[in-house]
Amino acid sequence: MKTIGIIGGGQLGLMLAEAAAKLGARTICLDPSTDAPARQACSRHIVAAFDDASALRELADASDVVTYEFENIPAEALALFGDKIKQGTRQLFDSQDRLREKSNARGVGLPTAGFAAVADEMQLDKAIGQLGYPCVLKSRTMGYDGHGQLVLRSEADRGRALAMLDCPCILEEFIPFDFEASVVMVRRDDGSTVHFPVGRNTHRDGILDVVEAPLADTATADRLIELTARLMTTCDYRGILAVEYFIRGGDIYFNEMAPRPHNSAHWTIEGCSVSQFEAAARYLLGLEIPEPRLTAKEVVMKNILGADMPWAVFIPATETSHPHFYGKTDCKPKRKMGHWTLLKK
Amino acid sequence: MKTIGIIGGGQLGLMLAEAAAKLGARTICLDPSTDAPARQACSRHIVAAFDDASALRELADASDVVTYEFENIPAEALALFGDKIKQGTRQLFDSQDRLREKSNARGVGLPTAGFAAVADEMQLDKAIGQLGYPCVLKSRTMGYDGHGQLVLRSEADRGRALAMLDCPCILEEFIPFDFEASVVMVRRDDGSTVHFPVGRNTHRDGILDVVEAPLADTATADRLIELTARLMTTCDYRGILAVEYFIRGGDIYFNEMAPRPHNSAHWTIEGCSVSQFEAAARYLLGLEIPEPRLTAKEVVMKNILGADMPWAVFIPATETSHPHFYGKTDCKPKRKMGHWTLLKK
Repeated sequence: MKTIGIIGGGQLGLMLAEAAAKLGARTICLDPSTDAPARQACSRHIVAAFDDASALRELADASDVVTYEFENIPAEALALFGDKIKQGTRQLFDSQDRLREKSNARGVGLPTAGFAAVADEMQLDKAIGQLGYPCVLKSRTMGYDGHGQLVLRSEADRGRALAMLDCPCILEEFIPFDFEASVVMVRRDDGSTVHFPVGRNTHRDGILDVVEAPLADTATADRLIELTARLMTTCDYRGILAVEYFIRGGDIYFNEMAPRPHNSAHWTIEGCSVSQFEAAARYLLGLEIPEPRLTAKEVVMKNILGADMPWAVFIPATETSHPHFYGKTDCKPKRKMGHWTLLKK
Repeated sequence: MKTIGIIGGGQLGLMLAEAAAKLGARTICLDPSTDAPARQACSRHIVAAFDDASALRELADASDVVTYEFENIPAEALALFGDKIKQGTRQLFDSQDRLREKSNARGVGLPTAGFAAVADEMQLDKAIGQLGYPCVLKSRTMGYDGHGQLVLRSEADRGRALAMLDCPCILEEFIPFDFEASVVMVRRDDGSTVHFPVGRNTHRDGILDVVEAPLADTATADRLIELTARLMTTCDYRGILAVEYFIRGGDIYFNEMAPRPHNSAHWTIEGCSVSQFEAAARYLLGLEIPEPRLTAKEVVMKNILGADMPWAVFIPATETSHPHFYGKTDCKPKRKMGHWTLLKK
């Protein structure tokens, strides 16, 4: 019986551990929080900070293979695991910095919005002059769910932009996209890939709200899959990768990527023959990864935030209605507490 | 077979017409929109403006009894119906103007937040001086779902407040309430009342989002019911009335009232032995109105807005899950497209 070590114990870790358990594997998560969601499904939970070298070593020693369920892991921490990080560290490294991420994507031929590095006022003004209003200022590292982002609509927003420059930033052209779509793909060690049907993502207050799959426009879906395969193959990324794209008319823009299971593909648990979590676990365990097939004509996932809990706890579980809760004890209005998958058979 | 005329053809008219049909009555709605939701359940739909005298007369002639499903009806229009407005017009008149509504409530002994009429800059400054920041400026008439309201937090908001003074306003003390609750009550012609279990309301972006019933704090619920009965009895209001209250600690504040079925009691369709719509219809038809009893331990209603439709169309209908859609063809993100009632048996 193999053991998968998971750096991080959030809901992604929880669902990965559940998938691994079904495949007969053990899991250990490392997370500083005593009520990390993944603790419920992992054989063991090491309660420690992500820079606690002895705890990381403990995780390495106890695991046959190690993965991570979020991107903001210090490089020094990862170095400690060596080859046990089966998917390698390059896709994590590339995803940790928005500037590196977008430069890399553009470098391998993926279309992106215009962007420029911004470290000080002079660079900010130069970048605004180049990209024009509206544009979006983002911190290069550590952003999630719209945090660390500021839309600049006119000169009036420049003051707030300056206040953000205490950390390295990237200024991006604002794309008034028709919709966002994401592709989750797993690349095997032999270089072949499998992918999940493309989902269409809708956000609310900066947080993913609803995913609808599959994308009705199959030509666009095929192009997104091709671009994602090109990125993974050219960069030799292995294991699981999620890539978000903006679509506007006939144009596609690479937005960002995450080298882990992704919120926009939680619907694959019931909506596909193999879920993103099972595919990720199969890759880590060296098992065959079958091509995922839809189990329904249409699938919709809705995130359940803290504000939704009063009604969400009453959602019926039926053949077509699958509520999931992550067991988080601290319920805040905007915190992701669970998700709900609905199938149209 | 009696015929109920309904001024307005929105979802309240729709659900009232459905309830009336179950009691063997006919319904006719008058609404300017050709796709008014109520048209689906009414025997007839008069497509006309609310100030179209000949259309109103047509409705009067064809109806044994007439009611309204919203408050912003011109007084002249109502005058035309005479005694056919069975519940009378005083509660409608009182509810049409926030100043009159609050003065009236206070006059009969209901606690309210501090308030003052504001028609010009001088009165605004005087009222701010009296009530202090934060306070809320509201248009006296025609407000709904947070429209026509402005929270003033400091002197900086005074400019935006001045811009609102093109119509008569009321300035109210801001109550940082713990929660909002509402009581729906029907007063029979003999002066006796029946009421529905009290719900706890949560808003999102100024629009009612979720109602949870019954209120766990039964002592507060009893006080709210008593206050509502006092208001109806003292003012001799008859038929259906919904009253919203703010609750803060041990304090209760009358907020506003509506002389019609109310969004916060849609859950009574499946959650009570008699719904608010059936009770309103029974009153209009002169039928016995039984005391409503809960059919479940807990009931939750969630409004379905346009932004929720991608997932809401897949909600399963089960013994405990009851999605409702209003048949509106124009789906906007913040438009009420339906509601969903969930029971915990």
